[in-house]
Amino acid sequence: MTERQLHLNAFLMGVGHHEAAWRHPRTDPSAVEDVRHYQRLAQIAERGAFDSVFLADGVQVFGDVRHSAASRFEPLTLLSAVAQATSRIGLIATASTGFSEPYNLARAFASLDHISGGRAGWNIVTTAGDRAAQNFNRDANAEHAQRYRRAAEFVDVVTALWDSWEDDALVVDPASGVFADPAKVHEINHRGTFFQVRGPLNATRTPQGHPLLVQAGSSEDGKDFAARHAEAVFTAQQTFAEAVAFYRDLKGRLADHGRTPDQLVVLPGIVPVLGSTEQEARRLSDELDDLIVPTRAVAQLTDLIGIDLTDHPLDERLPKLPPVTRVNGAKSRFELVRDLAEREGLTLRQLLRRLGGGRGHQVVVGTPESIADHVETWFRGQAADGFNVMPPLLPSGLEEFVDHVVPLLRRRGLFRTEYTGTTLREHYGLARPRSRFAAPLPV
Amino acid sequence: MTERQLHLNAFLMGVGHHEAAWRHPRTDPSAVEDVRHYQRLAQIAERGAFDSVFLADGVQVFGDVRHSAASRFEPLTLLSAVAQATSRIGLIATASTGFSEPYNLARAFASLDHISGGRAGWNIVTTAGDRAAQNFNRDANAEHAQRYRRAAEFVDVVTALWDSWEDDALVVDPASGVFADPAKVHEINHRGTFFQVRGPLNATRTPQGHPLLVQAGSSEDGKDFAARHAEAVFTAQQTFAEAVAFYRDLKGRLADHGRTPDQLVVLPGIVPVLGSTEQEARRLSDELDDLIVPTRAVAQLTDLIGIDLTDHPLDERLPKLPPVTRVNGAKSRFELVRDLAEREGLTLRQLLRRLGGGRGHQVVVGTPESIADHVETWFRGQAADGFNVMPPLLPSGLEEFVDHVVPLLRRRGLFRTEYTGTTLREHYGLARPRSRFAAPLPV
Repeated sequence: MTERQLHLNAFLMGVGHHEAAWRHPRTDPSAVEDVRHYQRLAQIAERGAFDSVFLADGVQVFGDVRHSAASRFEPLTLLSAVAQATSRIGLIATASTGFSEPYNLARAFASLDHISGGRAGWNIVTTAGDRAAQNFNRDANAEHAQRYRRAAEFVDVVTALWDSWEDDALVVDPASGVFADPAKVHEINHRGTFFQVRGPLNATRTPQGHPLLVQAGSSEDGKDFAARHAEAVFTAQQTFAEAVAFYRDLKGRLADHGRTPDQLVVLPGIVPVLGSTEQEARRLSDELDDLIVPTRAVAQLTDLIGIDLTDHPLDERLPKLPPVTRVNGAKSRFELVRDLAEREGLTLRQLLRRLGGGRGHQVVVGTPESIADHVETWFRGQAADGFNVMPPLLPSGLEEFVDHVVPLLRRRGLFRTEYTGTTLREHYGLARPRSRFAAPLPV
Repeated sequence: MTERQLHLNAFLMGVGHHEAAWRHPRTDPSAVEDVRHYQRLAQIAERGAFDSVFLADGVQVFGDVRHSAASRFEPLTLLSAVAQATSRIGLIATASTGFSEPYNLARAFASLDHISGGRAGWNIVTTAGDRAAQNFNRDANAEHAQRYRRAAEFVDVVTALWDSWEDDALVVDPASGVFADPAKVHEINHRGTFFQVRGPLNATRTPQGHPLLVQAGSSEDGKDFAARHAEAVFTAQQTFAEAVAFYRDLKGRLADHGRTPDQLVVLPGIVPVLGSTEQEARRLSDELDDLIVPTRAVAQLTDLIGIDLTDHPLDERLPKLPPVTRVNGAKSRFELVRDLAEREGLTLRQLLRRLGGGRGHQVVVGTPESIADHVETWFRGQAADGFNVMPPLLPSGLEEFVDHVVPLLRRRGLFRTEYTGTTLREHYGLARPRSRFAAPLPV
């Protein structure tokens, strides 16, 4: 087991990542609002020794309510419940730097890390779009670079708060009545552009020191941010060549921040549409795509790329899209969709089918063997350190992956047979940070 | 069971409400950071058919870190974990209107209500003190009345968001692809003094419609706020006469807001220091008071009333305190402490011992029989609809209350022998609100 090992994250989303999953006979749409459904999904992933489960999130109702089956749970409260039904798997929640306060967010993630025994991760998002801003006292959202400047300062404040209690601050001596050593509990006295925070945090140092920092933006701003702060990166990559370029680019930026390539784990998304034969897999893929409601899919695409395509004829090719510099939404996803449509000359309807499975993430249709081949090729080819697994149907697609793909990956020596650590950081092979306020270690 | 019934809430705080609880041999101070401790406490209260458990909270480190054993969990994440270990008991979390956004808070409580199957309650606090404000981009806190104006608008926005999905908004018809009826999902388009929120909430209507609204301020502003918004009120009352006056005052204000007296439940705090004999109870009380660290207690008192008493000699009577109009902290608690010290001519040391058990809440030292008498007297005398039970030691004090006091209350016909409802609202006998956006009921 000294060979480089693959990492697997299970991206949980309602009853499946395919946008029409809830309409397929293999799902139970009522599970979308049942906490036991998410507990069961995490248990399946834990049975497969996955590193983590992950919940995306937003702070608005997306797109077309009529045809969408989104989960209604807030990720931190949901993962706290999931923690009670699992013991080892990591728990990554999305939370926005755009519309919350660093003190509250630091506290909530510290709490989840305590509750779960060191299994919390924070997927840092800046949140694009005016609809989100309109739920938070504004008419329009901040522009892209400004959102990332706020995010960078936000993360600085949060990690300082996580450091504000040193590891050995607790004394707990009933005889003397000393509970904590005040010399090891620190005000952070942050005064920046966006925030002014005195501290200390009202939560002690957590099992992981810092809950894991995860990031998913792949724009220039996003990659710079990731190189500075992130320890795991979720990314959407349509081709092996693009994935290799992204991987090399991102890892290459780490040295500028005094970091080594093994301090950041790159996890492209993969939507595995599985069948026991290629035909069976293809049939499932077609069944799902046939259930797409075009008006809903257009609304989702509009949200995704920030360009309104509502009136574009379904069977015509896409219009030429503007340069990314004029986009204020999720820049990298915009580029991915534009390049995909142009490269393959897709009509809007064809594009909707290509995006229906994973909103721009790589869809791989095939047998367990062919999907394991795909995973191995990307992993050995330095396109990925592992994968963000996005089953089209849940729980069935995750069960199939764990029961049929994971054993192949193990047989090939790529993936652990059981957990070797107890915290999320340990699963990903990442060090536990020291508090910035702690005395230097003796030389 | 048609007789008026008592309500009981278990106020959970670390290893006990007495400030020296963690130093007493009957507690395990490491439990303060163990989620299983809180789950066990809730299970004990549920075994006693209590209406609810409750967690206080703040957004700062209080007082003297050296000698304080505060819980470090954030209430919503902790109660989500507690929900997994219980099935009927209500779960009330404190959250501040001063330093969060209504959209985020509405979402988190909606999530807890979904996760727990209708057991969530929100204890609404405005948060006093500059130390809190200094964690949120400000040098000083807003003044008292301003905090309550913000709170009132905050609650209006949150309840509107909870109403934004009507009960029957979900259609979930896989055949037609219709998941929700957009005509039953509403923007709230709030534009007020403090907030501008478009909506709808990204969470469907919850089991309770609105998580229960709880409030604990007893100042004039606090009582007005409670009369308008609250469905349960926690209050600190030192004497029967004061409790009766408070109860009558608060219930009398309801009509101004078109509400009836049974739409608000008044729950004074009680710290039951139990022994199998009066002597044994007195001994426990003395043991605990002897463990008080005066410097810590003075720091806590300073936080509690907003007046710095650090340099006041312990064995001298308190100085004359300023009129409440000049206080910008928790006004009602300030008045309670001032009146207690003046009425009984207490030295600072004596006052600290009187406050050590429950920070101003009524401490009752005695046998199960005498504590049941006290409860019955206050309940029958219209001083209380029930009690906020604050055991000095946890879990032992809660176990003793459930095993020895609750059976007496049942024998006297005052308290349920088992749950009759499933939601927190049903336990408290409170109606489930209709969405404000729903069509009027047919006449």
